[in-house]
Amino acid sequence: MEWVRKDLLGLEDLSKEELEFILTTAESFKEVSSREIKKVPALRGKTVVNLFYEPSTRTRVSFEVAAKRLSADVINIASETSSVKKGETLIDTGTNIQALKADIVVVRHNYSGAAAMLARHLKISVVNAGDGWHEHPTQALLDIFTLKEKLGKIEGLKVSIVGDIAHSRVARSNIWGLTKLGAQVTVCAPALLIPPEIEKMGAKVTHDIDKALGDADAVNVLRMQFERDETAAFPKQLDYFKHYGITQERLEKANKNIIIMHPGPINRGIEISSEVADGPNSVILEQVTNGIAVRMAVLFLVAQANEFVKDEAAN
Amino acid sequence: MEWVRKDLLGLEDLSKEELEFILTTAESFKEVSSREIKKVPALRGKTVVNLFYEPSTRTRVSFEVAAKRLSADVINIASETSSVKKGETLIDTGTNIQALKADIVVVRHNYSGAAAMLARHLKISVVNAGDGWHEHPTQALLDIFTLKEKLGKIEGLKVSIVGDIAHSRVARSNIWGLTKLGAQVTVCAPALLIPPEIEKMGAKVTHDIDKALGDADAVNVLRMQFERDETAAFPKQLDYFKHYGITQERLEKANKNIIIMHPGPINRGIEISSEVADGPNSVILEQVTNGIAVRMAVLFLVAQANEFVKDEAAN
Amino acid sequence: MEWVRKDLLGLEDLSKEELEFILTTAESFKEVSSREIKKVPALRGKTVVNLFYEPSTRTRVSFEVAAKRLSADVINIASETSSVKKGETLIDTGTNIQALKADIVVVRHNYSGAAAMLARHLKISVVNAGDGWHEHPTQALLDIFTLKEKLGKIEGLKVSIVGDIAHSRVARSNIWGLTKLGAQVTVCAPALLIPPEIEKMGAKVTHDIDKALGDADAVNVLRMQFERDETAAFPKQLDYFKHYGITQERLEKANKNIIIMHPGPINRGIEISSEVADGPNSVILEQVTNGIAVRMAVLFLVAQANEFVKDEAAN
Repeated sequence: MEWVRKDLLGLEDLSKEELEFILTTAESFKEVSSREIKKVPALRGKTVVNLFYEPSTRTRVSFEVAAKRLSADVINIASETSSVKKGETLIDTGTNIQALKADIVVVRHNYSGAAAMLARHLKISVVNAGDGWHEHPTQALLDIFTLKEKLGKIEGLKVSIVGDIAHSRVARSNIWGLTKLGAQVTVCAPALLIPPEIEKMGAKVTHDIDKALGDADAVNVLRMQFERDETAAFPKQLDYFKHYGITQERLEKANKNIIIMHPGPINRGIEISSEVADGPNSVILEQVTNGIAVRMAVLFLVAQANEFVKDEAAN
Repeated sequence: MEWVRKDLLGLEDLSKEELEFILTTAESFKEVSSREIKKVPALRGKTVVNLFYEPSTRTRVSFEVAAKRLSADVINIASETSSVKKGETLIDTGTNIQALKADIVVVRHNYSGAAAMLARHLKISVVNAGDGWHEHPTQALLDIFTLKEKLGKIEGLKVSIVGDIAHSRVARSNIWGLTKLGAQVTVCAPALLIPPEIEKMGAKVTHDIDKALGDADAVNVLRMQFERDETAAFPKQLDYFKHYGITQERLEKANKNIIIMHPGPINRGIEISSEVADGPNSVILEQVTNGIAVRMAVLFLVAQANEFVKDEAAN
Repeated sequence: MEWVRKDLLGLEDLSKEELEFILTTAESFKEVSSREIKKVPALRGKTVVNLFYEPSTRTRVSFEVAAKRLSADVINIASETSSVKKGETLIDTGTNIQALKADIVVVRHNYSGAAAMLARHLKISVVNAGDGWHEHPTQALLDIFTLKEKLGKIEGLKVSIVGDIAHSRVARSNIWGLTKLGAQVTVCAPALLIPPEIEKMGAKVTHDIDKALGDADAVNVLRMQFERDETAAFPKQLDYFKHYGITQERLEKANKNIIIMHPGPINRGIEISSEVADGPNSVILEQVTNGIAVRMAVLFLVAQANEFVKDEAAN
């Protein structure tokens, strides 16, 4: 197939074929990061802007490394800095970045829909690096890439997602992506942390962690952000760990090859025990490695689609 | 002509020929940013340091993009960071940057004269990216470049500058540059926001916005920074917009091809209406694009002059 | 000799031969920064991460410039940013950086031993850019490089270090490095600012500044950080300058070719007078220049050792 989207906004929009195409492209980029000279000229002379309205070292750094390994020039803009402070609107900031003749803007924003709004107003590519509770497509893609690498396929897998589903863009993007590719997704959390719409998205719901682990092929453990106000409703960190924490004891009742994923940064002893996070079932660090490959693929594909569109327009 | 200045500190110092030479050089660099590979090797192996004591995403990013498209290595230093906090003087910071064998320091500082002081103490090039209320030469150069691109010439144009003239380095640099190139400049603001020396600089003064628009070829709308203490004297934002805001209604009484410029970030509904900012007379985003070309030209010229000086000294 | 260490954690660990090997390598890199194109391809396609938990413009910038002149990609992570805020442990941050397939992490941390802890957990190279009061090896190496460049040797030199020895990683690294290379080190400070273990490290102690200057070949003047709580014990800045400040008057009683060093940023009138800092005996700015050469050498050597280890493992 040919990739034609100038933007990557969420996995909800993508077809099964598009998802598979990104994964295949990512496979071919993965090898670059194990070379002695970790660099290909694919985006030489292109400008990638990381526009982060929420702090996120991990995602920003992953995109920055991916872009640099593609030989792009990278510009970081953080929300602490000035135009943002001065109250320029997101759209104005976006059109300004476009006027700099940047090629791709990678945006992290606390409002759901921010990336899509930006994409509608811009001719250059927009990659969603997380918008509110809505989507975080490259995170889900790297989760799925890692699963596929480990288990050879996604079709028919049973994947559980445990944690604060209500406030998790990672959960939403995973549900869209996994179900499109034929996996069965179960979400597990206290009732307060499961939004009503989740079953319509195609996921099963359970409040029982042992059922969530049960015969699952993989479990994706979300970070509990007790520092956020929204989770204040949930009583205590220790209670959470007691009832939902992923521990060795719980794993022993699960599929012995169950794959443990986490988008990071992990809270040891809060949503996952150190024993599990560092144990043989954990692929948490492989997820980080695969994040580079997936983001290289996404940056490459959206830039190419955009180049193609521009060429068409010129003819 | 040959460019011989190692620094660009302000437009007051430059001759008409020098101004024109920068504009011509910028024209030749403009094309680079519309290439598929937006990069030339002009400053490969050179180090450009962005030294910003005031936050300014837009100007920092514009210089960073310009330097990277010239293949320079760019180092960002923001005032939040340490040596600056530790109270090292500007001169010591500058001599340290020079000792790193950097080639150009781009400085933004809240004191008028900071860039000139630095330039006197350093052998490497200094580019003023805004010093207090004094000058912001690359902003005025990109304004003038845009005007010339649109209207074919500067000589004989009537240009109005509207807003807080008293606290505006953009206004001052524009007045110096435009009058040297033969334009007639009128400034327009409430009396409190017009400094006494402005007429000596060669600008006419009016307090009447309709006169300022009148038969002007272009109007440069300054950002009103009501968050600054200095403007507290002026009563209310809404009053300002009523009396001085650039609206479609006011434009209809003006020259129908009048060019609307703004250094950004714009305050919609404060000094300019959205209708005008996004309308057919606005060249606000073209200014941003031209900023890259102008800054590439300036970085290239000062680096070359400096190289030449070093070569002479070696002989 | 062949360099075999993947990390540079401190000078205490290094043999005399290793110290000399770094200095010789740095000599060969020094010339790069005086070329017209200041760049060699030694680390092209490698990723260097600057991980700074304490703000330090000078050291971060020096490492960033050094890495870029070696053609590496550089990623800056500052402690203000997110994962660090979110409380991820140092080790988790390190293993994540390793999972990005970075090659070298340059770490500045407020805990003594942080760099060594990181190095034990990572296969990639770790360079200590200052850990608590423990060591700051590249600073001492650049001090020693500068001394050797000026005086032709280290063996037999008399070097005094003046200032807050108790809280100074610069002092500790200098003592280890200088004594291994055969210099005699004297430390000088008020009794409160000299830790009990210092004599065991091989340094002489004096509280008399004139004795410290005496017939010393060089004096390394430490920055007094009166803003730190730990120095609150010492009464007043002015008193310090009176009793320990390095002034022209004091220099006149010293060896007339005495070399004045300072790790910067200098506090004029607090630990050193402007006359001395800017005078003919001062090599303070040459230290900054040499910092680039030394850091290029260190980054190059640790990366090479690591490459070698990986190759061995592959066979």
